[in-house]
Amino acid sequence: MARVVQKFGGTSVASLESIKSVALKVKSEIDKGNEVAVVLSAMAGETNRLANLVTSVTSTYDPREYDSIVSSGEQVSIGLLAITLQEIGVTARSWLGWQIPIRTDGAFQKARIQRIDCADLLEDLEKGVVPVVAGFQGMGPNNRISTLGRGGSDTSAVALAIALKAKQCDIYTDVDGIYTSDPRIVAKARQLKQVTYEEMLEMASLGAKVLHTRAVELAMKHRQRLRVLSAFSDKPGTLVVDEGEIMEQELVSGIAYSRDEAKITLVRVLDEPGIAALIFGPLAAANVNVDMIVQNASAGGGATDMTFTVPQEDLGRAIEVLEESRAKTRYENLLSDNEVVKVSVIGVGMRSHAGVATRMFEALAEKGINIQVISTSEIKVSVLIAEVYTELAVRTLHSKYGLD
Amino acid sequence: MARVVQKFGGTSVASLESIKSVALKVKSEIDKGNEVAVVLSAMAGETNRLANLVTSVTSTYDPREYDSIVSSGEQVSIGLLAITLQEIGVTARSWLGWQIPIRTDGAFQKARIQRIDCADLLEDLEKGVVPVVAGFQGMGPNNRISTLGRGGSDTSAVALAIALKAKQCDIYTDVDGIYTSDPRIVAKARQLKQVTYEEMLEMASLGAKVLHTRAVELAMKHRQRLRVLSAFSDKPGTLVVDEGEIMEQELVSGIAYSRDEAKITLVRVLDEPGIAALIFGPLAAANVNVDMIVQNASAGGGATDMTFTVPQEDLGRAIEVLEESRAKTRYENLLSDNEVVKVSVIGVGMRSHAGVATRMFEALAEKGINIQVISTSEIKVSVLIAEVYTELAVRTLHSKYGLD
Repeated sequence: MARVVQKFGGTSVASLESIKSVALKVKSEIDKGNEVAVVLSAMAGETNRLANLVTSVTSTYDPREYDSIVSSGEQVSIGLLAITLQEIGVTARSWLGWQIPIRTDGAFQKARIQRIDCADLLEDLEKGVVPVVAGFQGMGPNNRISTLGRGGSDTSAVALAIALKAKQCDIYTDVDGIYTSDPRIVAKARQLKQVTYEEMLEMASLGAKVLHTRAVELAMKHRQRLRVLSAFSDKPGTLVVDEGEIMEQELVSGIAYSRDEAKITLVRVLDEPGIAALIFGPLAAANVNVDMIVQNASAGGGATDMTFTVPQEDLGRAIEVLEESRAKTRYENLLSDNEVVKVSVIGVGMRSHAGVATRMFEALAEKGINIQVISTSEIKVSVLIAEVYTELAVRTLHSKYGLD
Repeated sequence: MARVVQKFGGTSVASLESIKSVALKVKSEIDKGNEVAVVLSAMAGETNRLANLVTSVTSTYDPREYDSIVSSGEQVSIGLLAITLQEIGVTARSWLGWQIPIRTDGAFQKARIQRIDCADLLEDLEKGVVPVVAGFQGMGPNNRISTLGRGGSDTSAVALAIALKAKQCDIYTDVDGIYTSDPRIVAKARQLKQVTYEEMLEMASLGAKVLHTRAVELAMKHRQRLRVLSAFSDKPGTLVVDEGEIMEQELVSGIAYSRDEAKITLVRVLDEPGIAALIFGPLAAANVNVDMIVQNASAGGGATDMTFTVPQEDLGRAIEVLEESRAKTRYENLLSDNEVVKVSVIGVGMRSHAGVATRMFEALAEKGINIQVISTSEIKVSVLIAEVYTELAVRTLHSKYGLD
């Protein structure tokens, strides 16, 4: 007998029929002899509907009230699953964040879980009762309801699995698992049987939207086994595990891309110590997340060119901030470009193999694709290229690294 | 400075614009120098939507899950009012039943309030923060959310006013106050400035749907001053107070009617001791609420006719139950009639005046209206008549008792 946490997202509980399917998934896990706790999101669309009510009143709302309002979506879905489980003969009860409690810090709208007191849940599990737990929510200071931020239910599920010492945390979603690349643009993309936490983390932050980054970080920290699988099929999905658990690591496990990038170049900026702080300090203060940064070799005359990327939605704000600080940074010209894409090659195997990056550059050069910016980490190489080459680049690299 | 509890129903918070109007009502009470606590219902339609989700899964749902699901409606409305108040410069915070807590017994779906720990709310009031409290809900045993039954927000408001020792509990609704009769059928109906708890109670249970019966009972028990007034105008409304507060009591204060009645006659039922228990015991066991009962003088031959009324929606069930027990009660025939109405004359003045009932019977006889069943209490006389005479009877009595 193993203890398993099953997490189902909004599309899996979008209607009463979907909730019925979820109930059957839970029952089949129990029929295998396992102890099961379930974590749910709100019915698809509910969180958006509730958030829109709030922002229609004001954009400067009290985050504590926002959290209390939007967390009501999970209150409905968990109750509905509990009665649906009871209806098919599975004893179950719903648990709200404050009832357990799942204690969080006071950063409303993006709270972090501090502690889960799961004595009551363990008692339920021992009695054969399935706890159906509200994802996304916890209890902050002064007994106020907090939420973990959009997509936070994945984090709830992982945190609960850790607290309950579950053997595995199964994240049911609307895809079959993790793929070597986006199947919508790479027809030959294969589903991975296993992937390491590190790779999953890079994939999540580089545009693969299957798992919430914070959930993967948490799982990695506590070595909690995760599985990503479809709520709508019976396929085995992809295991996200520790590197040590994977016997033969492939060199590259996936090709990711993100269109959500914008490039900014400051032409002939002052070339002197402290200039980077003068540029990026005000951007950080304005909450603009700067990603890839390249400083070109000095163009001479005490000036240099500085290129970097920001999320597309922050481009306008970034330009404003840079213009305000122009008196200090004294750049000659500001160029910006929305039509770019970041393509990344990911794999823990890179650590022990040289030449992975070179092979990438060669492959892109062969197709005549110009690389605008490069950034690397221990387990990934990312390049910024013109957006029109997205499909060509991703498919080419997918073949080049033997993933087809 | 006085402390006031303001309660707004679902139609008063049906949209963001209505919630804005509610916020202005609250602000104007504060501008008078009063301390204000607010109790809200869910946005109109929400509780029905949530209840329908539950009953679509199963009719034999777990009442604890039902309560958790439907109580989420108030969680949304109180949060929205809190941010709307903040937006117009009024410090406010939302309070869920469990946060206060409002403790109830374990009769889920129809829980009774046992205790309100209002230390935190009093602290808010002292600091000038307006507590916006979720109506309809409380916390039952094992930290589970309970609800007080449909219309329960009136009861929440009265209980809170009592706990906070408020000077007055203002129930904002979609009518201007309590009328001498239904203005839709009696054009000459007048709004009452004051009415006693006892009269209000009779009016509520006899078809006037303005206030929830339990709320009036609770107010009466604790002598809590109530006011019923419109959320959509600035009229003063009707005060519901103790009899002692009303200097000159009128003989009759209102004419009520209820179409929600069905009449059953058991023809030639066995006339012997214990027969009433044989008839009404099984009905009570089936949760059928029997109202007016008349046993005709024995028709001879050891048999009698028994006539009584039940709520229209229970008629089918009542007939089933009676047919099942026919072997014991041995009635010859069962007659039923849906086309009846109960018309009532209400007034605490009746206690000290004879002849009120006689005047009613005479007035109806003058118009040729046949009385089918009569029942009386200390402060009301009710008659059952054919439904087609509703308007004629109510208008006639309204004039007869000088209420025009």
